[in-house]
Amino acid sequence: MPGRFITVEGPDGSGKTTLIQGLLARLEAHLLPDLVATREPGGEPLAEKIRDLILDPAHTDLDARAEALLYAASRRQHLVHKIQPALAAGKWVVCDRFVDSSIAYQAWGREIGVAGIQAINDFATEGQAPDLTLYLDLSAEEGIRRIQTQRSDEYNRLDQESIAFHKRVVAGYQELLAKDQGQRIKAIDASQAPEACLDQAWKILQAAYPEDFRQD
Amino acid sequence: MPGRFITVEGPDGSGKTTLIQGLLARLEAHLLPDLVATREPGGEPLAEKIRDLILDPAHTDLDARAEALLYAASRRQHLVHKIQPALAAGKWVVCDRFVDSSIAYQAWGREIGVAGIQAINDFATEGQAPDLTLYLDLSAEEGIRRIQTQRSDEYNRLDQESIAFHKRVVAGYQELLAKDQGQRIKAIDASQAPEACLDQAWKILQAAYPEDFRQD
Repeated sequence: MPGRFITVEGPDGSGKTTLIQGLLARLEAHLLPDLVATREPGGEPLAEKIRDLILDPAHTDLDARAEALLYAASRRQHLVHKIQPALAAGKWVVCDRFVDSSIAYQAWGREIGVAGIQAINDFATEGQAPDLTLYLDLSAEEGIRRIQTQRSDEYNRLDQESIAFHKRVVAGYQELLAKDQGQRIKAIDASQAPEACLDQAWKILQAAYPEDFRQD
Repeated sequence: MPGRFITVEGPDGSGKTTLIQGLLARLEAHLLPDLVATREPGGEPLAEKIRDLILDPAHTDLDARAEALLYAASRRQHLVHKIQPALAAGKWVVCDRFVDSSIAYQAWGREIGVAGIQAINDFATEGQAPDLTLYLDLSAEEGIRRIQTQRSDEYNRLDQESIAFHKRVVAGYQELLAKDQGQRIKAIDASQAPEACLDQAWKILQAAYPEDFRQD
């Protein structure tokens, strides 16, 4: 059986973490031991160190393009040393964020532009794209409302800059959706309750790969 | 007076370090305090940390494309935080290696290919190229001979793989020279004695920027 490379995408506040937890619980029953759940940097030692550089709060002068190159370098290590070996062994790989996130967050959010971010990620991935991407589709306004109301006081104060950033990220995802025309990226209505999102995602996976699931 | 962005390039064994020392001694008499001598990572704190990741001998599983992305990220930080501010202040910047080295060493030496290395460096530099590049032109065979005879015993044993690598690097530089047609890259006959190389480089700079030099 061929490996399946599944990514989950969505803006902050869209319920990505909850969806992935639910999906993995259901998938484990069907796919273990042929299931790998991962997210960048994915426990790859060098990718971890690169990620530490990016996220170190002392690095306030990290240029946005240098940051994007570091994400691409970390992605490359994670891809080559974790994702591709699992796919080659015929496993399902469920990955929390991949290149689409760099398009949304770096190209659109940080306003670097799509062409450049696509170019460095094409270099990093050599065309290895997800087979299927689940996108948690939520309006920018609803995402902002959720971030402001659901998270702890420490994080719920969004300034104007971060609201504008969030709106650009969502606009970037919407453009990816529009370009893809449902070929790879499957939108899930993230305004639904979490269980309804999970059911919708589950149906999408079963419809896409019926031969991978044991009879329910 | 506009800033001048000068890079010095050449394969290992071509005498780059000696040439730069000589050039800086001569330039200091004319250009100080408007001279900045630098090389990646150039003392830029984040670029230094990225370089440390690349060069750490423990990182034997650093993928060649991840390495190239890390070099580009380090270059970006060095460019934005050190080279560009100096150029904006009207200084001469003499930089030991820049994008040409990535074309020669990563694209050709590591056989990643020119298009990809050019793409990630275009992203990193946003088109900021050197104004003039001094290239120490030496045949692969002579470079290998020098490396084998001039360096300490610790480093003078070149295996077949590193000889093949060195030949690819020189071939990469030769293609850059052929494409450039002498517009930006000025070749210096590196088979000459060091003092003759220095004189040739000095004449190239004086001819290119006569208005920058006080009367000798």
